[in-house]
Amino acid sequence: MPTTRGLRRDDADTTGHKTTPPARYGMSLEGHLVDGAVHVAGDARQRFYDSRGYGRPTGGREIDLSYVEAAHLLFRGDLDAVDGMAFRGFFAWATEERRRFGLRFLVYSDLRDRGFYLAPAREDWPGPDAPDADFAVFPRGKGPADGAIEHRVRVLGEREPVAPADLSPGVLAVVDEESEITYLEVTEPALEGSATDDLPEEVPGVLLEDRVLCWEGATALYEQGFYGQPLAGRHSVVEDAVQLSLVEAAWLASAGALDLGDDGYGRVVARGRAVEGERFDRRLRTYGELRERGLVPKTGFKFGSDFRTYADFDGVESLGHSEHLVRVVPPGHEFAPRDVSLDVRLAGGVRKRMVFALPGANGGIDWLSVGRLTP
Amino acid sequence: MPTTRGLRRDDADTTGHKTTPPARYGMSLEGHLVDGAVHVAGDARQRFYDSRGYGRPTGGREIDLSYVEAAHLLFRGDLDAVDGMAFRGFFAWATEERRRFGLRFLVYSDLRDRGFYLAPAREDWPGPDAPDADFAVFPRGKGPADGAIEHRVRVLGEREPVAPADLSPGVLAVVDEESEITYLEVTEPALEGSATDDLPEEVPGVLLEDRVLCWEGATALYEQGFYGQPLAGRHSVVEDAVQLSLVEAAWLASAGALDLGDDGYGRVVARGRAVEGERFDRRLRTYGELRERGLVPKTGFKFGSDFRTYADFDGVESLGHSEHLVRVVPPGHEFAPRDVSLDVRLAGGVRKRMVFALPGANGGIDWLSVGRLTP
Repeated sequence: MPTTRGLRRDDADTTGHKTTPPARYGMSLEGHLVDGAVHVAGDARQRFYDSRGYGRPTGGREIDLSYVEAAHLLFRGDLDAVDGMAFRGFFAWATEERRRFGLRFLVYSDLRDRGFYLAPAREDWPGPDAPDADFAVFPRGKGPADGAIEHRVRVLGEREPVAPADLSPGVLAVVDEESEITYLEVTEPALEGSATDDLPEEVPGVLLEDRVLCWEGATALYEQGFYGQPLAGRHSVVEDAVQLSLVEAAWLASAGALDLGDDGYGRVVARGRAVEGERFDRRLRTYGELRERGLVPKTGFKFGSDFRTYADFDGVESLGHSEHLVRVVPPGHEFAPRDVSLDVRLAGGVRKRMVFALPGANGGIDWLSVGRLTP
Repeated sequence: MPTTRGLRRDDADTTGHKTTPPARYGMSLEGHLVDGAVHVAGDARQRFYDSRGYGRPTGGREIDLSYVEAAHLLFRGDLDAVDGMAFRGFFAWATEERRRFGLRFLVYSDLRDRGFYLAPAREDWPGPDAPDADFAVFPRGKGPADGAIEHRVRVLGEREPVAPADLSPGVLAVVDEESEITYLEVTEPALEGSATDDLPEEVPGVLLEDRVLCWEGATALYEQGFYGQPLAGRHSVVEDAVQLSLVEAAWLASAGALDLGDDGYGRVVARGRAVEGERFDRRLRTYGELRERGLVPKTGFKFGSDFRTYADFDGVESLGHSEHLVRVVPPGHEFAPRDVSLDVRLAGGVRKRMVFALPGANGGIDWLSVGRLTP
């Protein structure tokens, strides 16, 4: 399994199965419900665990299977029944017995189909050390006995909201209402850029409605720092005017680079709050931290986000591609998987990485980067 | 100006201006504030109205300009002052005087730069018949005297929510916080497809958590109607099982094509409401109307919307491209321009058209299609 770019098929698992039916060794094989697991006797350890990574050994040649694993072996015809239940009966029974069993079965089955070995890692199955995950997916070519975990996969229904605290780095497998699965990878982004802020002092500006106009002296701010936007038509007597957004103006005023008269910073922030409430404060904090990290943030409006950011910035003349889209979310925000899907799909389509900024109560900001894994 | 595909430059307007400064006729030209307009005497009619579509004639050779038009002529240097105010002074004054003046100036100026003739059409300027619009944009090569309007353009700040009732067909010019303009075209979509629903009778299914499983007999539903999704791995003893979403199951149950036992339809709808509230009813109504129009709706989860739809459907074997993304919005929903920008940008990126479904209180559904105009 590759480190980041996708869940790929492990051909080793599929060898020999494509043209021949599963080997059955000429005997009927049944599991039995014992203490919340499916116990399988005979040579189950060799047949399922050693060679294909199902279950956990219970000593000797026997194994316990989690319900999901047992269902998958029934589904494949490798197991005939569990206490007399064939796949249909067991599936319906387990769906009643275990919350979200159906979702987990779909994801387990999909990852197996893609050639991965994986093990359950939830409360009902004290498996590998993968807190908050449903499955531990092993590195390419490895199994449960090798001790390494490549991915922690959490299973979600598309209607289940996710709190930021639950969005720990790992893989989210979102099952939509039509049982299609979208894999999302959550990581901690490396947000560092090369921009240096060599700001001028006290460029004069005026606050007009929800933006600030600098009639003169702000051209360098624009050209060297990508602050604002020139107010220039194709034929204009106004040559040097630059418009600043309220966020840009507040940041520049706080740095002493913009002079808006008495209490300029306070008036810009008050105007920002008047037009967008507390969201303005969150966005200003995020903007400031991005600038401090050497990134150049500009509006992400055309992409439906708060900011797009440029990491390698050396003046607007040589402007490159922006790498990240940043959405600032309010405290306590719960992510709807559908909304995350929308953001991540759009970002991928424009070759950017989606980043969520979560300003905390302590003044810091947590950052989460989410991308789609395309199996 | 083309009908739909973009706001393009009218070269006629720019001829002669690219290399030479505006002709000034050797005299200083000043306007005067009179009854909420800027009155310009001299040969203003010939100079500004007849040849370039600014203002409205007041009899004889004189004209009245709206504030936006006057500001633009000051901006270009074609007018020297209004009651002693040059561009800067007039712009600041008018921003105080007229709400959203700055936004309207930016859009007017941008459209003029692109070579269009346009006239104000708001309360402060009883212009052409364009209710709820800020500007009437004239057909390519035409001006205010020709009597035809090509586009009604409404100007919005990115933070201003829009009620569905205000989303009449026309063009929205959304000015973002950094003064960039996004043009969105609202139309009434033609939602008609070729799918025929030749449904089987009472295929048996079971309701399991938030989906329905048909173990047998539903293959035709999938293959001929694109209902559901096969539950099939690469190696499985379960060959014919099809999973249906709750919306699909409710629709099929109401049509008599699905048998879920006693009160099957009622139980599916109750389950749908349990997992997503009233949204389920809205989505079911929308799904049903799309089906009745001959379209095939499937989940739009991967695109962050409710449905994607196929108009030309003739079986899953020959599945083509889905043309629309549909988002169902609740009654009274106010659109945030940023959210619309997100949806429309994503839809454009995957070569689909964004459609909003607005189920009304009377049982009907209003549909709005929104696309981006790329000037």
